[in-house]
Amino acid sequence: MKTIQLQLPSSINIGNNLMETLPSDSRIMSSQRLLFLTAAPLAQQMQAVIEPLKKTHSVQELIYDYLGEPTFELFGQLLDQLTGTPDCVIGTGGGSVLDCAKLLAALGTRKQQLTEVIGMQLVNRRTIQLICIPTTAGTGSEMSPNAILLNAATQAKSAVISRELVPDAVYIDPSLTLALPARITAETGMDALSHCIESYTNINAHPVIDLYALEGIRLIAGHLRQAVADGTNIDARTALLVGSMYGGICLGPVNTAAVHALSYGLGGKFHIGHGLANAMLLPPVFEFNAPASEYRHASVARALGATAANPTACIAEGAALLRSLASECGIPAKLSDIGIPEGAIPELVATAMEVTRLLNNNPRKMTPEDAETIYRQLF
Amino acid sequence: MKTIQLQLPSSINIGNNLMETLPSDSRIMSSQRLLFLTAAPLAQQMQAVIEPLKKTHSVQELIYDYLGEPTFELFGQLLDQLTGTPDCVIGTGGGSVLDCAKLLAALGTRKQQLTEVIGMQLVNRRTIQLICIPTTAGTGSEMSPNAILLNAATQAKSAVISRELVPDAVYIDPSLTLALPARITAETGMDALSHCIESYTNINAHPVIDLYALEGIRLIAGHLRQAVADGTNIDARTALLVGSMYGGICLGPVNTAAVHALSYGLGGKFHIGHGLANAMLLPPVFEFNAPASEYRHASVARALGATAANPTACIAEGAALLRSLASECGIPAKLSDIGIPEGAIPELVATAMEVTRLLNNNPRKMTPEDAETIYRQLF
Repeated sequence: MKTIQLQLPSSINIGNNLMETLPSDSRIMSSQRLLFLTAAPLAQQMQAVIEPLKKTHSVQELIYDYLGEPTFELFGQLLDQLTGTPDCVIGTGGGSVLDCAKLLAALGTRKQQLTEVIGMQLVNRRTIQLICIPTTAGTGSEMSPNAILLNAATQAKSAVISRELVPDAVYIDPSLTLALPARITAETGMDALSHCIESYTNINAHPVIDLYALEGIRLIAGHLRQAVADGTNIDARTALLVGSMYGGICLGPVNTAAVHALSYGLGGKFHIGHGLANAMLLPPVFEFNAPASEYRHASVARALGATAANPTACIAEGAALLRSLASECGIPAKLSDIGIPEGAIPELVATAMEVTRLLNNNPRKMTPEDAETIYRQLF
Repeated sequence: MKTIQLQLPSSINIGNNLMETLPSDSRIMSSQRLLFLTAAPLAQQMQAVIEPLKKTHSVQELIYDYLGEPTFELFGQLLDQLTGTPDCVIGTGGGSVLDCAKLLAALGTRKQQLTEVIGMQLVNRRTIQLICIPTTAGTGSEMSPNAILLNAATQAKSAVISRELVPDAVYIDPSLTLALPARITAETGMDALSHCIESYTNINAHPVIDLYALEGIRLIAGHLRQAVADGTNIDARTALLVGSMYGGICLGPVNTAAVHALSYGLGGKFHIGHGLANAMLLPPVFEFNAPASEYRHASVARALGATAANPTACIAEGAALLRSLASECGIPAKLSDIGIPEGAIPELVATAMEVTRLLNNNPRKMTPEDAETIYRQLF
């Protein structure tokens, strides 16, 4: 077995209506200065947690009211709003909010600049405690060492990857996701699914991570339709959050591959949602990669629900299941359906080819011509 | 999904020859005073780690040279030997050593007495860092909030259970287990297997824990024979350590049940090894419990390798597989084979019935008569 290092939150809390117990978290109890960074749609719901804490703590609240991935500028604005240094940062929201909360906890002492920590393991030892509360079942940011920022000028994405960005505690509470619109549920769910599939079929796949990846695929494929059809289905919402958490565990030690690399240009240049871009790319990349590892792709297909005994047939069934899942959840099949011109392909290919950090993980070598063929299938 | 709280080491390192990287662990790097508690058979091997650290750290070494579960007196002696207060405790050994290392880290500041913390969640916030390095694949102590002590006078066992006993970092390194004798490999492996089975069939079973339990069963049942036959089989040793780690994860949120309750008297009064006692009790308790949850017991049987489609037949096959696994690993089938007189049964039953903490977890209510019947099957 290859050497592996898992960096995990030391406290993982899963259950409905957990916000009642959040104030008694030992990290909050042992802190004096709390910083809450909360996604705008959750701000009202979190008041029930925040207001009583003001009696015993110094509390600062920042509302994250921005769609899309955070830019360097936006993070700078958040950091500028910090009054003093918090003892504990509590982030509540989707991946963008959690990524910013993670960076605020890492950089809130102002001893390092954001530009100094772009890259791998460049963050100094974090002294501010960090609690993350995901309110989408998608990025798995609550479990990962990653934070992604967008350069508004160049449209390029930068990643801060550090064990110091893994939260100390996470709260996985489906009650916070009940109001999530069907479209966001679908797109974020497909993103989580892509984390699990890209990890399991990765050249760096590892048996300890395979366990989470396959269970994540089963949970998401088994519950996404229900949660999209009825957002108040607590069991489906819980299963998606747990599946997304497993996808997040996959990101640190193994990470993603060509699906995520090919989605960079769609997100950066065309502002297509990260989950939507991944959802559309997942089936053609799955088919492209399958010859490199029939066994692993057939295992993914079975976790998706395929039953064919023959590996090749099983893989074809898996690709069809990926397409039908996306379609039934309202994901468009074609990039032309979401306003991308076919003439953008060369630029999309060029952007994807630069993401060698992820392409190098792909089980099958992908040339620019391969990438072009994959994009063309989406027109 | 029921609410669950996972308390895990925030750093889990798995791989061969990891001791080379231990000195660069951030907990050691940030400490000045290190305390190594090491099982006697590993003392020589650990010198390669400890000696160089003496150049940069104040290092105290304690050798744990004692067979069987630690007594209150033994732990008191270890604590008395502490010179000053360490910043970081590094425990290397089997479950007894790790339990003592966990308690030394929790009580090394001498602000609480051992007698104050017996029970659930009574340990104050731990300020000494804690690294555990298991050298048997058995107790899973490196992942659990438990430490067990024996009262030498009464032969009763006491448990300290606290989230503060969960280590900060663990190193799972098969190279440290290669010299473990076949008998210890077999007994500790069956102990780890019992953690997984008793958790999966527990009334408090939880889907998040089921994942670890079933994988643990597959890993241990699939590799124990190989490791017993050839202790230098690295792949088998690794699989057992990972399976044991999964069993340890099961202990905190779910814990064990009747097998462990019925083994208390064998360990306390007759000093039968904990793993051996559990190994012998596992098949009859599995058969006794099966009617309470056919689905779960058939799932365990399948993870053990059973293939029968009919649940009842599958469970019978599972019980037979448990017996053949134990037998092929050299575990005696009868208590009479290891010197227990049949006349001890009433006392064994009485001792077991007092362990309500675990019996209450059992999927089927167990009366004193039931316990007696189970013990009689082992004569």
